[in-house]
Amino acid sequence: MKISQRAQHIQESPIRKLTALANAAKKRGTTVYHLNIGQPDIDTPPAFMERIVRYQEKVLSYGPSDGLEALKLAMIRYFEHFKIQLDVKNIVIATGGSEAISFAFNVVADPGDEIIVSEPFYTNYSGYASQCGLKIVPVTAKAEDGFHLPPLAEFEARLSSRTRAVLLCSPNNPTGTVYTPEELKAIGEFARQHDLFLIADEVYKEFTYDGKVHFSLLQLPGLEDRVIVVDSISKRYSACGARIGAVMSRNEEVMKGITKFAQARLCPPTLEQVGAIGAYELPHDYFDGVMAEYQKRRDILCRVLKTNPRVILQKPEGAFYIMAKLPIQDGETFARWLLNEFQDNNETVMVAPGEGFYKTPGHGKDEVRLAYVIEAAKLERAANLLLIALDRFQG
Amino acid sequence: MKISQRAQHIQESPIRKLTALANAAKKRGTTVYHLNIGQPDIDTPPAFMERIVRYQEKVLSYGPSDGLEALKLAMIRYFEHFKIQLDVKNIVIATGGSEAISFAFNVVADPGDEIIVSEPFYTNYSGYASQCGLKIVPVTAKAEDGFHLPPLAEFEARLSSRTRAVLLCSPNNPTGTVYTPEELKAIGEFARQHDLFLIADEVYKEFTYDGKVHFSLLQLPGLEDRVIVVDSISKRYSACGARIGAVMSRNEEVMKGITKFAQARLCPPTLEQVGAIGAYELPHDYFDGVMAEYQKRRDILCRVLKTNPRVILQKPEGAFYIMAKLPIQDGETFARWLLNEFQDNNETVMVAPGEGFYKTPGHGKDEVRLAYVIEAAKLERAANLLLIALDRFQG
Repeated sequence: MKISQRAQHIQESPIRKLTALANAAKKRGTTVYHLNIGQPDIDTPPAFMERIVRYQEKVLSYGPSDGLEALKLAMIRYFEHFKIQLDVKNIVIATGGSEAISFAFNVVADPGDEIIVSEPFYTNYSGYASQCGLKIVPVTAKAEDGFHLPPLAEFEARLSSRTRAVLLCSPNNPTGTVYTPEELKAIGEFARQHDLFLIADEVYKEFTYDGKVHFSLLQLPGLEDRVIVVDSISKRYSACGARIGAVMSRNEEVMKGITKFAQARLCPPTLEQVGAIGAYELPHDYFDGVMAEYQKRRDILCRVLKTNPRVILQKPEGAFYIMAKLPIQDGETFARWLLNEFQDNNETVMVAPGEGFYKTPGHGKDEVRLAYVIEAAKLERAANLLLIALDRFQG
Repeated sequence: MKISQRAQHIQESPIRKLTALANAAKKRGTTVYHLNIGQPDIDTPPAFMERIVRYQEKVLSYGPSDGLEALKLAMIRYFEHFKIQLDVKNIVIATGGSEAISFAFNVVADPGDEIIVSEPFYTNYSGYASQCGLKIVPVTAKAEDGFHLPPLAEFEARLSSRTRAVLLCSPNNPTGTVYTPEELKAIGEFARQHDLFLIADEVYKEFTYDGKVHFSLLQLPGLEDRVIVVDSISKRYSACGARIGAVMSRNEEVMKGITKFAQARLCPPTLEQVGAIGAYELPHDYFDGVMAEYQKRRDILCRVLKTNPRVILQKPEGAFYIMAKLPIQDGETFARWLLNEFQDNNETVMVAPGEGFYKTPGHGKDEVRLAYVIEAAKLERAANLLLIALDRFQG
């Protein structure tokens, strides 16, 4: 029995595909420091489980397809902190940011349509795009520019009759770049000129450093019809396993279309929505400690790596990733070697090869993505392991 | 800004689309008995929440894409009750039966491919098929045959070069029919002859009456390569809001393909999986009481409706639905009239129009689907309301 072409050809996650090698290393007794995956070690706030434990309904019945109203109201209050006004009809709760991206793709584009994305980008966009039959058209952001948005001329050169949207992620995964209001306004003007949607993945909005403030596309006046924001509690409240996200727009047709897609899968998980209400009800200073912790880790990772002048990186402005250029030929060979052959005092480090974050062939081969989601002392050791490995690696 | 064609044209759920009228009736003070939706009123077993309350992990992190191993092991023990042997690698946990159907569709078929389904069928298959770019090709089952499978010649007449699978639902939604081992063996032989997959939606497997036993396609020897079973805890444990389902197959390529689709959306919701473990750990006699309750309700609904000889129905063998032929021209007009105009002692009843369960144009117009998911006294009143309404309706 032959399975479908799409099942044969769907891309394996570059973030997860080396997992078998890591497991083998652990079986040999080697400690593996995971810098490869954005799984924070920060505790999920207790308010999340406390809210669920108080759940009293005797029948766990289907909820509304667009999500629990109480969760939407809690989100609306959260966004008021940023002076962003939303209405319940501007929000559909999704099963994770993943589903939110699929909803956004499906509502703006038909099979064969194109979406322009600044690369490097979160690799899973490719998976969702291929499932929705869309083509991702990359414009390349440069490390030297701190991975800020390429000039508009580059976006313009990628336009075709099938272009339907520009997808932006800020604070960015995998680069940590936080786009300025000015560059967002410019890309907004570009979208207006060419009648495109703007999809903004803002799941890392709470994680900005050195006093930098995240500017949301929801704050850009005059683009209410074009902006669709993808959101999630996974990183915000360290609740990746909850699978609670949201898609938000002030375009009524967009929200009606998304609601129909949402009805097709009946509803998002109920209890995890209840937990999310508890998290969103926390006072906003909850994030102060989390942000300080990530900033400390970022500083450690950058400080250690910069002691090797052949490691090229920009200090990230947000999120919890660094895209680092290393003195290597091929990130995947290096990542495999780290797991298969390298060890120092029976310890090694796992990284995500950079190539998987680029669509343009050949780009990112000498880069790796590093996530600073482990505690300071371990992170410092992991960074030093990486330097020791670079000294030894012949690739 | 124009949204996509697919967002404009996706079918609204025929089960949910009259909800606004029901809400309006309730606002007018009319009691609405819901026979339109398969939302059981049976309590979710307390073991579900008890298991979640005991969850102790401090970080609700990403789980495995294919689901928690502990849940798979609990399912394996549950299936042993039916003498069905499964391995953890035969199971991928899905976010509801909905996602399980999408996974099954995506792994067997590419855009433009066809799947043969006996109609009437669960309307959401159409939504998933259109999202996956597939065409559902119906063969019509007849009320006079108790909605059992049409002759194989009818299936054969629907074959094309794009046919990839036959999809069966047993016990059936919306007809309540439980296919016999003989008809499943015949369709299995048909699948082998024409090199097709068999997708079996068995989410109602626990609900069979009068001592009838459900026969699973997983029990059919020689079809291990072809059979893909869609499963869910939604009805089994009255936990529709949990969104925990599964897709099961002994075909390794199929499971590898599905695992890649599962990786693309990272993981299913964690806490609801933990709750499902608690439910699956219940002794199997938990179902005795549930089954007796549904059988009692079925008997009440059939007894009352049969007092009108112009109502044509077969006593269903399983699930908790009846597909009834009524002395009306158009089920949707009737359903709207019930909500907009009819009342008896300020009470009315909501039904799902039959046409939405058929793909062949014009079929099912004089049918409605009735779900017997409300308690006995209310159900008896609802059935009597339907008879009173039929006497008054001029459609």
